[in-house]
Amino acid sequence: MNRRMVFHTVGLIVLLEAVLLLIPAAVSLLYREESAKAFFLTILFALLAGALLILPFRPKSRVIYAKEGFAITSMAWLILSAIGALPFFLSGQIPHYIDAFFETVSGFTTTGASILPKVEELDHGLLFWRSFTHWIGGMGVLVFLAAFLPNLSGQSIHILRAEMPGPTVGKLQPRVQDTAKILYIIYIVMTAVQILLLCAGGMDLFGSAIHAFGTAGTGGFGIYSDSAASLTPYQLWVITIFMLLFGVNFNLYYYILIRRVRAALRSLELWAYLGLVILSVTIICINVSHLYEGFGTTLRHSAFQVASIITTTGFSSVDFNAWPALSKSILLLLMFCGACAGSTAGGIKISRLILFFKNCHAEFRYMIHPRSVNVLKMDGKRVEKETQKGVMVYLVLYLICFAAIFFLISFNGFDFETNFSATAACFNNVGPGFAGVGPLSSFAAYSPFSKLVLSFAMLFGRLEIWPILLTLYPAAWRARQR
Amino acid sequence: MNRRMVFHTVGLIVLLEAVLLLIPAAVSLLYREESAKAFFLTILFALLAGALLILPFRPKSRVIYAKEGFAITSMAWLILSAIGALPFFLSGQIPHYIDAFFETVSGFTTTGASILPKVEELDHGLLFWRSFTHWIGGMGVLVFLAAFLPNLSGQSIHILRAEMPGPTVGKLQPRVQDTAKILYIIYIVMTAVQILLLCAGGMDLFGSAIHAFGTAGTGGFGIYSDSAASLTPYQLWVITIFMLLFGVNFNLYYYILIRRVRAALRSLELWAYLGLVILSVTIICINVSHLYEGFGTTLRHSAFQVASIITTTGFSSVDFNAWPALSKSILLLLMFCGACAGSTAGGIKISRLILFFKNCHAEFRYMIHPRSVNVLKMDGKRVEKETQKGVMVYLVLYLICFAAIFFLISFNGFDFETNFSATAACFNNVGPGFAGVGPLSSFAAYSPFSKLVLSFAMLFGRLEIWPILLTLYPAAWRARQR
Repeated sequence: MNRRMVFHTVGLIVLLEAVLLLIPAAVSLLYREESAKAFFLTILFALLAGALLILPFRPKSRVIYAKEGFAITSMAWLILSAIGALPFFLSGQIPHYIDAFFETVSGFTTTGASILPKVEELDHGLLFWRSFTHWIGGMGVLVFLAAFLPNLSGQSIHILRAEMPGPTVGKLQPRVQDTAKILYIIYIVMTAVQILLLCAGGMDLFGSAIHAFGTAGTGGFGIYSDSAASLTPYQLWVITIFMLLFGVNFNLYYYILIRRVRAALRSLELWAYLGLVILSVTIICINVSHLYEGFGTTLRHSAFQVASIITTTGFSSVDFNAWPALSKSILLLLMFCGACAGSTAGGIKISRLILFFKNCHAEFRYMIHPRSVNVLKMDGKRVEKETQKGVMVYLVLYLICFAAIFFLISFNGFDFETNFSATAACFNNVGPGFAGVGPLSSFAAYSPFSKLVLSFAMLFGRLEIWPILLTLYPAAWRARQR
Repeated sequence: MNRRMVFHTVGLIVLLEAVLLLIPAAVSLLYREESAKAFFLTILFALLAGALLILPFRPKSRVIYAKEGFAITSMAWLILSAIGALPFFLSGQIPHYIDAFFETVSGFTTTGASILPKVEELDHGLLFWRSFTHWIGGMGVLVFLAAFLPNLSGQSIHILRAEMPGPTVGKLQPRVQDTAKILYIIYIVMTAVQILLLCAGGMDLFGSAIHAFGTAGTGGFGIYSDSAASLTPYQLWVITIFMLLFGVNFNLYYYILIRRVRAALRSLELWAYLGLVILSVTIICINVSHLYEGFGTTLRHSAFQVASIITTTGFSSVDFNAWPALSKSILLLLMFCGACAGSTAGGIKISRLILFFKNCHAEFRYMIHPRSVNVLKMDGKRVEKETQKGVMVYLVLYLICFAAIFFLISFNGFDFETNFSATAACFNNVGPGFAGVGPLSSFAAYSPFSKLVLSFAMLFGRLEIWPILLTLYPAAWRARQR
């Protein structure tokens, strides 16, 4: 392991966070809020911590491999969250540090689970920072670094692989830096368009920005305790459409930009995603039609909730915990699906699900015709045996982690639906669950131990398990640098 | 597909059922019960159906491969259950045929889920038949046929593979018939010993036989509505120990019989199984200690419940639905584990879980040392790539089926805990779940559609998915006989 390079890069990330914290600090100043002090203290601390990580660890070699990519990513995310929690804590608006840490991890991992029963009580600066972490975490801090810091670009594909969701990460351009830049530019433009559309619908700039951050990162933090229930139909539809758009693999947007629309439309994952959305909305519409007046309202809430859950955003326009069992079951299953790989969404990802089905089908054929040769293809490309194996092992790890998290938070003694959906909602980076952690409740009732467990669940979910596990594995650190 | 051989063998199974039905019929006569008539009518019908399957389909070739093994097994189990349900229905003691079918599938698949709110109201003959199906289904009807009908023994390894649980089925003897015979003799002797021990503890012969059948098949049907709550401590301990014994791979007993005790003790699965039992009992003991007076009572109920759930038997000595969340979570996780492969238990099986962990570990090593060669070993033997792949695909299929069953029974509108645990309890062949399907409740409240879905869930679980899926797959029937 190239430890010097690991610490050096993590130090850069911490400095980057200091710079990013200037924006919410400015918002605090603008609204003349007390919390500005907490922001500047945090920025000072981050500058100091960054310097302490960078200066003593001048890397002799800049070469990094998969294991360094994993170590950098998991350490960076942990330290980012630990520092990012300070403004909440130092301002006294979230009195317990573990609560502040939970809230910040929930932000960066784009989960949107909250320990705040009344979110309206937070300062504007803190509300902005809370949602801004969604936006930063959505596309990824390391992708940002790779895009805009040239000296990292050598082997940064390993960092991209560790941070970006999905079974495989393709390079859009020969140079990783260019790929990262393209992704970020698409991300920024789409967010800006959404802010404009929300402003056009009568929302103020602050609210529009917050909701756009929550949508772009598929996070789900808002500014009201009842989430999106008080928004107008127009605003709900804008958010619905943008949630769905941010759930699409960003590579497809790039293909469209370079006029390879056909290549984009050939994506099986895209069609499976849209099909799943339409099917779910249809069934839920029928199932909840007796609860709302008129088809328009029913469709609006059904579509909003399906888009919110499948993209693992977690906004709610109604208390879906009060919906009939069938609709809740569909939402629960969608929490696990997640949206497309290479998007900002969490969950298992639809491309993995497609690979699972294809593997089952291949095994079918093998059992009937044992001598036939089976080659697995996706979108016309052959899927390597290593990728197939990796996807399968990921599923196993996913289930083991799920069972472990569920077991550990059971110590709290809450009911089954609360514990199970809390695990599903945090691990899949959705946010709200059912029953005790439903859309109108919060995670405040869990013990500090459970909150820590769920914080790690969110990190495991966002980074897709491997990076953190490997960083905790001593042999990975002992392994010699080649 | 060798269709003639498939129908011919299924016909033999139906005839076998006619013979087996003579035993509960005799019990009915002994107790001078009305239901004897229903038994004899069913026997007549089975003889007729068997003849209709055997006579027109004289097989030209007796060669069978994997796909014929699958087709025979799944069709046999379906028809066995359909006919086995008749005594309940014809006697009028279970008025709806779908209820009777559910109860019989639950019997044969050794699930133990019941639609009877008050089981005491059944005739002795029907109670006997209900529990006898556990005993038959535990070791398997086709294994029985392979053991005692010589003309099937040629390629019957494929039938054994389809019917016996676990990722691989080893032949103990070069001839399949001998393997099947050994397994059945061990099974019969162990059941007899348990009956004797229960009789010695003051239980009458009828009750002892019923409870031994429920234990041996890891089924869980009893003769009281409160399951095993009224049994004495001695009887509970006897059942606890025998449940655990029937959860062990039967191959190990064979090794002990031929004095290869060391080979038996080298089984990693055995130690993982025992370790899991001891760990679970310890935690639950601490967690529920405030509910019972004295350590003896606490230990008895904890051990009984852990043994009952990990072996997927489903007896209950207390209402474990009222236990604290932590204990219920442990029981829920154990429902999925199941006991050892090659036992009569359901669930995923511990040997599969071990293979999952080993696969994760191999992937770890591969990520850190990409050039190292990874060979997966279990109990000193190399695990073939095909077996590894098969186990992984099984997990995927398992999850897809689980999600589908859960979704389909959600139409009933019951709460999440009821639906989820009903799915887990039926698919893993456990029996009782939590909440609405807890140990003191029954599955009576579900709609006929849900009962059918859950019946198929039990069959899918018992036969480990593949056989039924492949039988439903048209290409398997079209595939030419080699």
